[in-house]
Amino acid sequence: MILLEERIRRDGIVKAGDILKVDSFLNHQMDSALFAQMGKEWARLYANTGINKILTIEASGIGMATVAALEFGCPVVFAKKSLSSNMSGDFWHSCVHSYTHNVDRNVLVSKEFLGKGDKVLIIDDFLATGSALHGLVELVQQSGAELIGCGIAIEKVYQNGGNILRDQGIRVESLAKIASMSVEGGIQFC
Amino acid sequence: MILLEERIRRDGIVKAGDILKVDSFLNHQMDSALFAQMGKEWARLYANTGINKILTIEASGIGMATVAALEFGCPVVFAKKSLSSNMSGDFWHSCVHSYTHNVDRNVLVSKEFLGKGDKVLIIDDFLATGSALHGLVELVQQSGAELIGCGIAIEKVYQNGGNILRDQGIRVESLAKIASMSVEGGIQFC
Repeated sequence: MILLEERIRRDGIVKAGDILKVDSFLNHQMDSALFAQMGKEWARLYANTGINKILTIEASGIGMATVAALEFGCPVVFAKKSLSSNMSGDFWHSCVHSYTHNVDRNVLVSKEFLGKGDKVLIIDDFLATGSALHGLVELVQQSGAELIGCGIAIEKVYQNGGNILRDQGIRVESLAKIASMSVEGGIQFC
Repeated sequence: MILLEERIRRDGIVKAGDILKVDSFLNHQMDSALFAQMGKEWARLYANTGINKILTIEASGIGMATVAALEFGCPVVFAKKSLSSNMSGDFWHSCVHSYTHNVDRNVLVSKEFLGKGDKVLIIDDFLATGSALHGLVELVQQSGAELIGCGIAIEKVYQNGGNILRDQGIRVESLAKIASMSVEGGIQFC
């Protein structure tokens, strides 16, 4: 998606340690007009697939998933990273490793909101090694819902998480695919 | 806002311990079409105020704030509850008590994304004692931005957090105001 690639080139900052900072428009400050365009693109890619639920994970996936849901006309459910006192009932849960916080944690979705009859699109902001996405896929599989595919904003293709999932037969549509990046050389898209 | 009150009456569940579960449409599963209507209502209430930034807090405020931002044509920034390895630079921070997790925590916003020249609308899903909202107001005040007001989905008026802020001269617009609620008696709106 040219619009997103151009925005990453303009406002993204490559930092040492394989970090791409896109927090001015994607995951701290968020450009919802851009998210609306991204939602339209995922809706185009997944036209006529019957998607009736979007699944994402807190926190940085929520904004784009909720705006994208307007295009699909379906609800969004976000997987939670902790249980709070106003949550009750049964949960699907899986383990996700967070590289940005360097911890493993359980992520949870209430069984009320994910199950048989749901045709699910998973949306997230980043795909690198694929740990978060793998955890979300597991939640869908546990629940008996049907996984239609994944919609990712930025995939670091060289970290291979996306291709591991594709090799398992899972459809993954990333709007910006980074082939390589470095502080000196900048970003090369696929 | 009648639409939201009707939805709370239909799908909200009052539980012991003063808990209102609205997780089927507001803060776990999210109805983005409802959020779009809420965004239109906040935009009507705050017409001609020059709002150019929305501030919210992770996680459950993000969905409605991002959809509402489409109505205002401005970016959203969400306050983070922890620092991750891909975050750097300077942050505004304030302390917020979470009643649902029963912990105090620092919330953070990058100084890059909140400061002089910003005319801020704070959006959040719930207002009860006002701890989260108070923390967000403090971030705005620290930054030198101008606080135009707050947009809340559900205010538990009897917990008084909203009126304490209004007494300080802060504009607070809540779309559903609960005067009282109980498991036996249900919900009474103001």
